[in-house]
Amino acid sequence: MTEAPSQQGNRLDRRKARTRAALIRAAQTLIAEGRTHVPILEITQAADVGMGSFYNHFETKEQLFEAALESVLDSYGQLLDRVTAEIEDPAEVFATSFRLAGRLHRREPDLSRVLLNNATRLLSAEDGLAPRARRDIQAGVDAGRFQVEDVDLAVTMAAGALLCLGQLLHDQPERDDAAAADRLAENLLRMFGVPARQAHRICRLPLPDPSSARGDGSAA
Amino acid sequence: MTEAPSQQGNRLDRRKARTRAALIRAAQTLIAEGRTHVPILEITQAADVGMGSFYNHFETKEQLFEAALESVLDSYGQLLDRVTAEIEDPAEVFATSFRLAGRLHRREPDLSRVLLNNATRLLSAEDGLAPRARRDIQAGVDAGRFQVEDVDLAVTMAAGALLCLGQLLHDQPERDDAAAADRLAENLLRMFGVPARQAHRICRLPLPDPSSARGDGSAA
Repeated sequence: MTEAPSQQGNRLDRRKARTRAALIRAAQTLIAEGRTHVPILEITQAADVGMGSFYNHFETKEQLFEAALESVLDSYGQLLDRVTAEIEDPAEVFATSFRLAGRLHRREPDLSRVLLNNATRLLSAEDGLAPRARRDIQAGVDAGRFQVEDVDLAVTMAAGALLCLGQLLHDQPERDDAAAADRLAENLLRMFGVPARQAHRICRLPLPDPSSARGDGSAA
Repeated sequence: MTEAPSQQGNRLDRRKARTRAALIRAAQTLIAEGRTHVPILEITQAADVGMGSFYNHFETKEQLFEAALESVLDSYGQLLDRVTAEIEDPAEVFATSFRLAGRLHRREPDLSRVLLNNATRLLSAEDGLAPRARRDIQAGVDAGRFQVEDVDLAVTMAAGALLCLGQLLHDQPERDDAAAADRLAENLLRMFGVPARQAHRICRLPLPDPSSARGDGSAA
């Protein structure tokens, strides 16, 4: 049986995509287990792909973990999008996402540590949380809810607060993560021009339960 | 000639300290040259110490560069201390240090990159900029200049802003670094409870020249 070159190309592309996805899934499992120091051979065995095919996709283990982390953060961003989809006030959308993301550092400590180790590079990522923060802050500006002259600087403040909160929570295990995340969200809202009393109220609203939005509505 | 054991111990301690200092100086030169990927052998040769003595002091190259960076940041912190020593308003002390530190990312890009790669770990360092920020914010609170309930969270916001500013400036080479650093300093002052008009004025004051304070007053 012969195939047209384009079909061969497509099949090869699909196989490459499957290999890459398997490597990323294996890396995500290792991140979740806090085992990011394993050798590449162990990653390729867990992914059930050949050792050599690793280097068709990634130059280093760090590059794979970064891609895996970006993909995790993008999924988390999609989850936050679903959880906040029904909220009308852009200030509350931003605060809700920040308050939930701030709670991740304790609830997913291994993910948090990989996030901290790749902290600033992730600010430049095209997927994940930073572009969503930019979108939400811009929506607040467009709605006249935020007085922010430079959206990139506002994202910088929010991302910096979220990352350094993670380090603070790891350094101070006795600290109340929810209270700290809510306080920082309130600070950010005030900095974006939301009146202090409103910022305080918004950051004390009950939070939606992210686990209820994990699926895509397919629960029976 | 015989020596008492304690003298031998002291001489050994001094030699160990000299070796460590030579390794750290070599690492600082490599950081300044943007050459942090050289093999350990090249570092020990530059430091003029034996390859084996490296492992008496550091387990990994990363550990050496982290120590070198902490030492650079501590020196920079001492410089900021001298530059701001004559300023009476604690809000202006904090703003001046932040505005100068924010300008480092462009003026010392290699130092900035190593800083970003070790971003969150440096928040927990005992020397360097984070403890100075804590001291300065606490001074503002004590003087009634800042209304900050949780100084650690305030340091978190300031450190996060400084680090993520670095990434933003690397990602947007055309951006005015001085304007961005001043704007973030103003945001932070407002967040710490300084009235908006004062925060604006303080962050537009002429900055002291750090190079004039590099020495310890020994210039003829």
